[in-house]
Amino acid sequence: MSSTYGESLKLSIFGQSHSAGIGMVLDGIPAGLPVDMVELQQFLNRRAPGQNDYSTARRETDTPEFLSGISEGFTCGAPISAVIRNSNTRSGDYDDLRDCPRPGHADYTAHIKYGGFHDIAGGGHFSGRLTAPLCIAGGMCKQWLTEMGIEIGAHITRIGSVVTEGFSEQNPQLGRIGTIFPTLTAEAAEAMQEEISRAKADGDSVGGVIECAVIGLPAGLGEPMFGGIESKLAQILYGIPAVKGLEFGAGFASAALRGSENNDSFAVQDGKIVTVTNRCGAILGGISNGMPLLFRIAIKPTPSIAREQQSISLSAMEEKALVIQGRHDPCIVPRAVPVVEAAAAVAIYDLILSNTQTQRRKL
Amino acid sequence: MSSTYGESLKLSIFGQSHSAGIGMVLDGIPAGLPVDMVELQQFLNRRAPGQNDYSTARRETDTPEFLSGISEGFTCGAPISAVIRNSNTRSGDYDDLRDCPRPGHADYTAHIKYGGFHDIAGGGHFSGRLTAPLCIAGGMCKQWLTEMGIEIGAHITRIGSVVTEGFSEQNPQLGRIGTIFPTLTAEAAEAMQEEISRAKADGDSVGGVIECAVIGLPAGLGEPMFGGIESKLAQILYGIPAVKGLEFGAGFASAALRGSENNDSFAVQDGKIVTVTNRCGAILGGISNGMPLLFRIAIKPTPSIAREQQSISLSAMEEKALVIQGRHDPCIVPRAVPVVEAAAAVAIYDLILSNTQTQRRKL
Amino acid sequence: MSSTYGESLKLSIFGQSHSAGIGMVLDGIPAGLPVDMVELQQFLNRRAPGQNDYSTARRETDTPEFLSGISEGFTCGAPISAVIRNSNTRSGDYDDLRDCPRPGHADYTAHIKYGGFHDIAGGGHFSGRLTAPLCIAGGMCKQWLTEMGIEIGAHITRIGSVVTEGFSEQNPQLGRIGTIFPTLTAEAAEAMQEEISRAKADGDSVGGVIECAVIGLPAGLGEPMFGGIESKLAQILYGIPAVKGLEFGAGFASAALRGSENNDSFAVQDGKIVTVTNRCGAILGGISNGMPLLFRIAIKPTPSIAREQQSISLSAMEEKALVIQGRHDPCIVPRAVPVVEAAAAVAIYDLILSNTQTQRRKL
Amino acid sequence: MSSTYGESLKLSIFGQSHSAGIGMVLDGIPAGLPVDMVELQQFLNRRAPGQNDYSTARRETDTPEFLSGISEGFTCGAPISAVIRNSNTRSGDYDDLRDCPRPGHADYTAHIKYGGFHDIAGGGHFSGRLTAPLCIAGGMCKQWLTEMGIEIGAHITRIGSVVTEGFSEQNPQLGRIGTIFPTLTAEAAEAMQEEISRAKADGDSVGGVIECAVIGLPAGLGEPMFGGIESKLAQILYGIPAVKGLEFGAGFASAALRGSENNDSFAVQDGKIVTVTNRCGAILGGISNGMPLLFRIAIKPTPSIAREQQSISLSAMEEKALVIQGRHDPCIVPRAVPVVEAAAAVAIYDLILSNTQTQRRKL
Repeated sequence: MSSTYGESLKLSIFGQSHSAGIGMVLDGIPAGLPVDMVELQQFLNRRAPGQNDYSTARRETDTPEFLSGISEGFTCGAPISAVIRNSNTRSGDYDDLRDCPRPGHADYTAHIKYGGFHDIAGGGHFSGRLTAPLCIAGGMCKQWLTEMGIEIGAHITRIGSVVTEGFSEQNPQLGRIGTIFPTLTAEAAEAMQEEISRAKADGDSVGGVIECAVIGLPAGLGEPMFGGIESKLAQILYGIPAVKGLEFGAGFASAALRGSENNDSFAVQDGKIVTVTNRCGAILGGISNGMPLLFRIAIKPTPSIAREQQSISLSAMEEKALVIQGRHDPCIVPRAVPVVEAAAAVAIYDLILSNTQTQRRKL
Repeated sequence: MSSTYGESLKLSIFGQSHSAGIGMVLDGIPAGLPVDMVELQQFLNRRAPGQNDYSTARRETDTPEFLSGISEGFTCGAPISAVIRNSNTRSGDYDDLRDCPRPGHADYTAHIKYGGFHDIAGGGHFSGRLTAPLCIAGGMCKQWLTEMGIEIGAHITRIGSVVTEGFSEQNPQLGRIGTIFPTLTAEAAEAMQEEISRAKADGDSVGGVIECAVIGLPAGLGEPMFGGIESKLAQILYGIPAVKGLEFGAGFASAALRGSENNDSFAVQDGKIVTVTNRCGAILGGISNGMPLLFRIAIKPTPSIAREQQSISLSAMEEKALVIQGRHDPCIVPRAVPVVEAAAAVAIYDLILSNTQTQRRKL
Repeated sequence: MSSTYGESLKLSIFGQSHSAGIGMVLDGIPAGLPVDMVELQQFLNRRAPGQNDYSTARRETDTPEFLSGISEGFTCGAPISAVIRNSNTRSGDYDDLRDCPRPGHADYTAHIKYGGFHDIAGGGHFSGRLTAPLCIAGGMCKQWLTEMGIEIGAHITRIGSVVTEGFSEQNPQLGRIGTIFPTLTAEAAEAMQEEISRAKADGDSVGGVIECAVIGLPAGLGEPMFGGIESKLAQILYGIPAVKGLEFGAGFASAALRGSENNDSFAVQDGKIVTVTNRCGAILGGISNGMPLLFRIAIKPTPSIAREQQSISLSAMEEKALVIQGRHDPCIVPRAVPVVEAAAAVAIYDLILSNTQTQRRKL
Repeated sequence: MSSTYGESLKLSIFGQSHSAGIGMVLDGIPAGLPVDMVELQQFLNRRAPGQNDYSTARRETDTPEFLSGISEGFTCGAPISAVIRNSNTRSGDYDDLRDCPRPGHADYTAHIKYGGFHDIAGGGHFSGRLTAPLCIAGGMCKQWLTEMGIEIGAHITRIGSVVTEGFSEQNPQLGRIGTIFPTLTAEAAEAMQEEISRAKADGDSVGGVIECAVIGLPAGLGEPMFGGIESKLAQILYGIPAVKGLEFGAGFASAALRGSENNDSFAVQDGKIVTVTNRCGAILGGISNGMPLLFRIAIKPTPSIAREQQSISLSAMEEKALVIQGRHDPCIVPRAVPVVEAAAAVAIYDLILSNTQTQRRKL
């Protein structure tokens, strides 16, 4: 199945970049949960384009209209649906791309898969714009998780060649989380923005790494094997366009460690069981251990660049130079930060709803 | 859901390390597909322990008995089930661990999740032994994929501090694939085995990185968003114990590249559309582009080490030294190689069965 | 999961009777399928209210706006979404019902389930109005099935005490199918409409029986056990409000037959294998045999009646007389006919998409 | 998907009538639930053949071996698996049937679906024998439901032409439930057994109707639309071979009632809300109302009869007389009674585990 996610909740995302609208349906949510619409809009604004000079100049209104599922400020048990209208529909900018696929985009793979019937305008269903409905669902889940004492925050640890430090593995501080360019320090943000400006000046783009922490997650969440937290997070995170890597805890670095270094010793602290290190990112056997959950994702550089690139003509079956028109983000990493938080929130909330262990002997 | 995977096929894996048996049910497979049992057993043998001095000395018989679903050498349309009996059941070696969880294992997380009711012997359902039934399913899927011209092969690119080169991103050679210690060169294998021996001599363990290629995959496979190849592979790969990282194509390295470096230019070669580089690992928008699919996974060092470690007593709620008894693999990476191939085969075969696009206008 | 249906296609239905809108998302549909919007609207009109004096006088505009998934008249591979705006939202007519549940409605069960947070206006998510989005999905599936040579038609065989003959079990004639009051003969329709008028005059309502045929279904569709055609049809048909019974072929009557009467003998006719009778309704072992598929569903009388009824006050926990305001259909059976066809179309089309047997050796 | 059922629990059933074994995997069950093996075997014995002269003389040992998921008498959180060995495997009795399908059986439909690769011996995966693993799963679920105060009991209300009274719709008495031939009165059982003997003497068979009650089910269980109790029960019940009809509460009779007769008035009794009648079978909008849940299923007469029947030769494509060898139940209705209870138990327990409403604000 394509654009559907979840076990106990079912998230269905629809829309194309230039169709009449995009949106989402979120089914299986308990009734009686409050939704703070002001806070939700603030969250969506973090993803919105056009906020500064390293993001696209296009202006999109990402204000969702809720059609159902929320009644007088609370979930009512019916599926929650929300729609964002697309203002620029069916623009002619993309017609040439049907014959000449953009490198690094899904133009070619969609062409083959759908036999030429796909909606190519603006990238169609593969557009980064489809992360807006994901943020609607995730923004609500974040609110419900907060009510349970679970906080999710992400920041940027790399842009191109600029690398900065990550979270403390045992005590992540979410201080600057939630800002437009979240990094641990303001200096890091500045250096990264310069890196983006350099790429832009070169008619090029850069990618980066986002690190995310889930704090307050109790021990015992997640299922064995394919239902583990890592599996569930991975499935939704790889649904975000441009994600090419994902690691938990020490991740790839753990491959270079000895077992004695990588194993997290247990300790008792203030009457609670903790681990002295957190190489495992708080997940063992797919199940949480009560420490802060940590993961990092790699975001590739924006494929739409100003420079001329080598493509092909599908009709002529010959190579052809391509210059992509329009203005595009030289770096989508900052706007991807809330999307990562949203995806994590949906996955974690679904795991909570799916936890049959808590249903053991009650109705 | 825990130990179940798949959209069109449904793989259900069961068993604990020391229960009467372990096994799998694979439902949804078309009738009329041949199963070569000799070849399947050879594949399972690649995962079997006790083959050399850097793997555990325990001897397990990993010979499955098929109970159903295969009739006269062909799938018959009914669910395929297979069982491997456990010879050493209910050993007393693990009783102490109920109070004193092993660092890096699921003992503690399972204890919290299941309220003390989990089967702790040998790691229970979290044991690496549960990858044997995954290999039964994956071994069959591999055969059916081969018949379609799709080959899956994995090798080791890192053991601890020893790093070797990976596949050519455009033309992976599966030469030494399928051996007990598959690497691109015999020299690399030798250096890695020395690294393992050093760790073993220190009463310690090492992890590593496995790289996998899927060759012959046609363009157009995979679904958008959460149904993409990356999402589907990630869900099953993270179900393999000890996997802590996963990247596709250039992966984390793509975060350091410019868009102009990371975009794969198109070209026409021998009348076919190819890409000049393969940074994307053959996946764009979740859908294959016809080039070799490439991914790498990070395997953490075996958590069971001979050295004394710091754990806790759950009953006394105080710190306690732990020495794990018995002999364990100082490195499980070589045995994980066929498991990675198996998991990939199951996911790819499921994507093929789920491809409604091919069902378009026929019955 | 509540309002989601399907294996290979995923239908998600949303909305409440008086929310801003109702609609559906249909994911997993192949690209390149045409959608005839005029024909679809005609199909939706069969379900629309206010067409004659035995149906409610309320006027609803059931004209869907498609937001995505259809591009230049063809499916484009992206999820198809459509919304119908509700014109009469948040009317105050239903406020009293929050304390005094209507007998035969879901007011009380929803109250208990959702702890009072459910949207009660117009029946909320439980309203018969939610069958409109089901008809959008089903209307499209019907078109795609027609293209494959599969026709679905339903008619009325009972209204209250008026019973008429059903389809020929071997050769159902869909002659008057598709009219506003479909029965095998015009006389039957007349007698049934009189029965409805009598109930209406009494401030009462009547139910009935709908029979449905699926013609042109090839042999070999459906899966064993819980994936059989009967299971899949039953799941979606029981999702239609007011359905209380479902039988296939001879159904309950087969319980009174001898095996020698109920078994359908085989014969060869015009070089094709047929059965001489069709007691099984064309399904054996959950799989189609190529004859016309036949089933009947029982629709209970409309619970909203003009007469005073006995309810309770939830706050006072005492019995209380209730008179339901507004005008309601004295019989919803005629309007349910296209809904039954739509539900069957969705289920059959999903079974076709899910048929992995046809995926056996190809890509 | 074929032989898999469930949302929160996942039941996978495998095996063919004459394969090495049959069995089931039940995943998603909470840890810490006791399983009484003696009681479970007693339940399985109710389904076993050969107990009297109206059931088949074949002797099958239906004693399951549990391979995993139960540890020291309690569920341990891992998937529960159980296998029943088949003693009579690969008998030659069925070889002729590959060319000459039995009327009323799945021989022909399976032949077409699986292209001749299906396992035909004993009916293969379509055999009634596959209800044994369903009873293993259902027998355990019944025990866990009993612990919650929910009882499930079924009895026979019709065998061929012999009809007897059903449960009181408001207060079903489960007195003779659980016996080998459960009916409300011993007289009814006697008359029905005579009906079976008559059919047997004629070389024929009879079907019947089973009524089932679920008592103690709290109000508020079930989901809207396709997740309603009726939908979920229907999906699993139609997975039982020979089921051709299913109705809830008044069912098909409600089609003949006026709304004023069919609506169940509310009343307050002993401080609790009840309904004065129970026409709806305790389900409104797919959700339970706290009254006894009631449904009836129609079982067709056993298709295997001693009399000569008309079939065809698939190879010659011509009609051919068929005489089925071996001894078969002239009526499988009594043995189907525990199967209906088992199926209902699985569905109800799954609905309880899936009830996200109870997960609202807790971990």
